[in-house]
Amino acid sequence: MKLPEAGLPAALSRLSECFASLPGVGSKSARRMAFHILNISDERAAEFAEAILGAKRDIHTCRICGNLSDGDLCVICASDRRDGSKICVVETAVDLLSIERTREYAGLYHVLGGVISPLRRITPDDLNIQPLVKRISAGGNGENSAINEVIMATNPGAEGEATAMYLSRLIRPFGVRVTRLAYGIPVGGNVEFSDNATLYRALEGRVEVE
Amino acid sequence: MKLPEAGLPAALSRLSECFASLPGVGSKSARRMAFHILNISDERAAEFAEAILGAKRDIHTCRICGNLSDGDLCVICASDRRDGSKICVVETAVDLLSIERTREYAGLYHVLGGVISPLRRITPDDLNIQPLVKRISAGGNGENSAINEVIMATNPGAEGEATAMYLSRLIRPFGVRVTRLAYGIPVGGNVEFSDNATLYRALEGRVEVE
Repeated sequence: MKLPEAGLPAALSRLSECFASLPGVGSKSARRMAFHILNISDERAAEFAEAILGAKRDIHTCRICGNLSDGDLCVICASDRRDGSKICVVETAVDLLSIERTREYAGLYHVLGGVISPLRRITPDDLNIQPLVKRISAGGNGENSAINEVIMATNPGAEGEATAMYLSRLIRPFGVRVTRLAYGIPVGGNVEFSDNATLYRALEGRVEVE
Repeated sequence: MKLPEAGLPAALSRLSECFASLPGVGSKSARRMAFHILNISDERAAEFAEAILGAKRDIHTCRICGNLSDGDLCVICASDRRDGSKICVVETAVDLLSIERTREYAGLYHVLGGVISPLRRITPDDLNIQPLVKRISAGGNGENSAINEVIMATNPGAEGEATAMYLSRLIRPFGVRVTRLAYGIPVGGNVEFSDNATLYRALEGRVEVE
């Protein structure tokens, strides 16, 4: 006797597939999530659906820096309490949030939207680079806040570093200081298990013990 | 200078919270999923939202067995290729799917919707038990398919076993055979790392080597 494949009802497997398309979600977790949706109230489910549509509808990129925002300007560009003389260049808005969480940086940002990658055919024209150059040549967000430092916070790796190098050559002519994040052993890491490239960078960037 | 908390835009943090409410999703993964939604097409996002609403709207429980279904009957109860003389009693529709995947079982199912739990104040009346008794006393789905075996596949544990015991006392008077899944060392597991309860059950349930 051949058994009919007693799979999920169509509506449920469709939902499962949607969850499985999310980053880091396998088919088993996706099915568990789909079953979870069946158990929540109709109101919660409607809120979830609306949250998806609402995020797509309301979230845009900031006109100045490319950060995510639900208005014309992001909270950082709109704030009058940020140090307008510094711009930190990041690959994505997620990187920006990570730096914000340190609560160490009070300047502005610029979100590139990726890195230059000949292999993946991503050229400088595909990135949010021209607006950065304009910001620097125009002297910053406000009138009286000339930019004097641009901090490269692209990811350490061939493409991130090449992009930082490219930007540096583009920006330095405007007379601004171009810096990059320090490389080294991560806090809580250890020397024994650090890879060669990291140790090399940590040695190279060694500083005087105070 | 006190920094303003540069969090996510409201629409994005709402979406993040929705994802974080799913089982097994932490706040970091939830944020990553929310960012992912921003990067998919509007069509895909609309499909996702509709999949959530559609699952809530279309998925009901099967009138006979309590399995999930998008019609009046689930695919198993609606099939004429299942062995109508056996009913396998499971706690949830997910358990049913797990047993289906073995492709070993051709009978019918009955989904309890949980287990009896005095601690969590779940009584037999809260579960899909009366319809099971009715199915058995009425002699199965069809006219000519008297049920002769009910297999308890509740989870091994105090509540699952107590529920199986309760059902067994309820069902046996109808003259059907009541069995339960075998307990023992899982395939691929090993004796050294098996817990006491499992080893005890494996010893107790030992079978003749053929």
